[in-house]
Amino acid sequence: MTKNNPSPLDCSRLKRTLTDKPKSVPSPASEESRSQRVCTDHMILARWTSASGWEAPILKPSGPLEIPPTASVLHYAIECFEGLKLYRGYDGGLRLFRPAKNCERMRTSAARVTLPDFDPKELEKMIVALCAQDGPRWLPREQTGEFLYIRPTLISTDSALGVRTPREALLYVVLACFGDNSSIVPAAISSADCTAGDLPGLRLRTSDLDSIRAWPGGFGYAKIGANYGPSLVAQRETQAAGYDQTLWLFGEEGVVTEAGGSNFFVVWRNSETGRLELVTAPLQDGIILAGITRASILELARSRLAESCDGLEAIDVVEQQYTIQDVSRAFQEGRLIEAFVCGTAFFVTPVSIISHRGEKIELHQGCHRSRYARVMRSWLAEVMWGNDKHGDWVVDVNGAR
Amino acid sequence: MTKNNPSPLDCSRLKRTLTDKPKSVPSPASEESRSQRVCTDHMILARWTSASGWEAPILKPSGPLEIPPTASVLHYAIECFEGLKLYRGYDGGLRLFRPAKNCERMRTSAARVTLPDFDPKELEKMIVALCAQDGPRWLPREQTGEFLYIRPTLISTDSALGVRTPREALLYVVLACFGDNSSIVPAAISSADCTAGDLPGLRLRTSDLDSIRAWPGGFGYAKIGANYGPSLVAQRETQAAGYDQTLWLFGEEGVVTEAGGSNFFVVWRNSETGRLELVTAPLQDGIILAGITRASILELARSRLAESCDGLEAIDVVEQQYTIQDVSRAFQEGRLIEAFVCGTAFFVTPVSIISHRGEKIELHQGCHRSRYARVMRSWLAEVMWGNDKHGDWVVDVNGAR
Repeated sequence: MTKNNPSPLDCSRLKRTLTDKPKSVPSPASEESRSQRVCTDHMILARWTSASGWEAPILKPSGPLEIPPTASVLHYAIECFEGLKLYRGYDGGLRLFRPAKNCERMRTSAARVTLPDFDPKELEKMIVALCAQDGPRWLPREQTGEFLYIRPTLISTDSALGVRTPREALLYVVLACFGDNSSIVPAAISSADCTAGDLPGLRLRTSDLDSIRAWPGGFGYAKIGANYGPSLVAQRETQAAGYDQTLWLFGEEGVVTEAGGSNFFVVWRNSETGRLELVTAPLQDGIILAGITRASILELARSRLAESCDGLEAIDVVEQQYTIQDVSRAFQEGRLIEAFVCGTAFFVTPVSIISHRGEKIELHQGCHRSRYARVMRSWLAEVMWGNDKHGDWVVDVNGAR
Repeated sequence: MTKNNPSPLDCSRLKRTLTDKPKSVPSPASEESRSQRVCTDHMILARWTSASGWEAPILKPSGPLEIPPTASVLHYAIECFEGLKLYRGYDGGLRLFRPAKNCERMRTSAARVTLPDFDPKELEKMIVALCAQDGPRWLPREQTGEFLYIRPTLISTDSALGVRTPREALLYVVLACFGDNSSIVPAAISSADCTAGDLPGLRLRTSDLDSIRAWPGGFGYAKIGANYGPSLVAQRETQAAGYDQTLWLFGEEGVVTEAGGSNFFVVWRNSETGRLELVTAPLQDGIILAGITRASILELARSRLAESCDGLEAIDVVEQQYTIQDVSRAFQEGRLIEAFVCGTAFFVTPVSIISHRGEKIELHQGCHRSRYARVMRSWLAEVMWGNDKHGDWVVDVNGAR
């Protein structure tokens, strides 16, 4: 191995050491699953050094990592991650949803904190290998419609105390029980009918003027640790005020960006054209995460709702900067139809109220509430759990070994 | 222990397990010391849980930490740290410089990422206990004028994958060999005379418009990981362009904030009053770190340079927002006297050049260059290494056991 030719990440070199003490598998609805602490039997890791590049990936029993106390991940947040899910399809298949998008985004995130580059296809193979190893037992065939959570992570293990581009790093993937965050809107949301009771929905509170999540020229677009830890103070205030998530505004004009760790959409009627619009913040400022659920919703809406469909009015898809005042005005003028958040953790979850500095923007609107969120959720679920073969959106895990 | 009465951090409960394999101690100028990877024989740790509070601190052989792969420090940058030094005084004493300030700031940083609170006096006792344990052998009595680097660190060890306020954390302190970063300006700078050769000085390059370190409503004031990892891309570009550190500007008007991980000062002559001014960015925007070296320099300048002293002209101390254009104009008008950075890592280091989008602001100015930086460095060194008993600025470590 010469210095100029460091090894690329290569999942074909994978070495396996299987556990001889398989854990007991908690049921999806159990307290243990919902604790989001239980990893499956194995994890997969690949070490990197600037001198030699990527070592052979290793699949081994999951457990604590040994990290030097001076490792720069612990001091300088040289870390990035992804979140995706392994789905047990209605037909018994195990599938991933657009994992190539996660692996590609992880490269972008890694670059933002000078972590090493890799071929995203090899990371995807590592994810598939882990899912093929642990999926069959941890997501049994009878648990159709359930999922496990996949967490690829890349951290600097460089033990030099100086703040510098890391010379050692560790890429790893764990598979974990997660519970269903989106069950804040139980049952009813999964069907498009109107028989269900009141939908609680997600309760949002806008961020204060003195609390800004991300800034142009910063790193809001990257899935790096630095976007999350500092958001917790606002999140704690939001919850203390009786709300679920912070709706992050930017600037004095109150530009709407994200909700908690999810992307945010509104559906309103344009006061000039009279047409319905599905509106979300654009990516070009670099202050919001380029969500894969977000992209999928935009694609589905553009392809299926350009004309009326399933009793739903046609809708224009708009990625543009808009402010909380625009949302408020649409609400006051009766043009605000619904709002929802989306992402891997919360899937597609309708918003029931937005509290903005004293004003309450209520989104309970009778029987036809949250219809666009529900149809998006339903369309996506059909793909994720295998009923709708939507082009190349799903990757089959069965028999990957 | 009741739930409502979690244990406070209490260094009097310290338990010790000493190493039976003491490491060999590298010399301060060795490659090994300068690698900034070598910790002394011991470290000190205290675990915290939201249910029980702080456990008894433990002093034990230094080595890797066992961290769950899902621990939120590795994903969400729920981490903060401090940096200070243990000095071997000219009189053979072991001393800390204003450690209470570091411990107090660490509380502020911890709060910014919802890490647990603690009595800063107890953290200071932990630092003193570790220094008293390892200082005598790792910083031998004959190494007067040398130092070790102290790194208190607080991380979330909560293993739940959800983004939330941590329920488990680990506070630890390591003591490490560090080498002398500030030796970029060797020998000459430590004396106030003019016999030395050319001073290389630190070469700064201003950040690009599309690269922002911190913003109002963010967390630039806190010593948390999230301020460091994302700064490395700009730092790499700075070094690729042949410079040492990034001079971070804010906003389109180019407000001057910090240099790399250090505070930044200029000395210029005010064009209206004709008086010399020592100028640095103010703290109230919350975008710069409240440096302890910064505060000490401001205090020394206010108390000792209000009138002319040691052949130096009197100087007004000014904490105010100023832009790179102000610096450039002072340079072009011959009013820019010097510039320097300061902090624990770089101590007080003169700046020789600032490259700002094509313009070069040169600070080589003949024999009397960097006189204020040199006198500040000299005054601080006298306190740190024990020649000047400056009120309560130093804490004695000898005999702390």
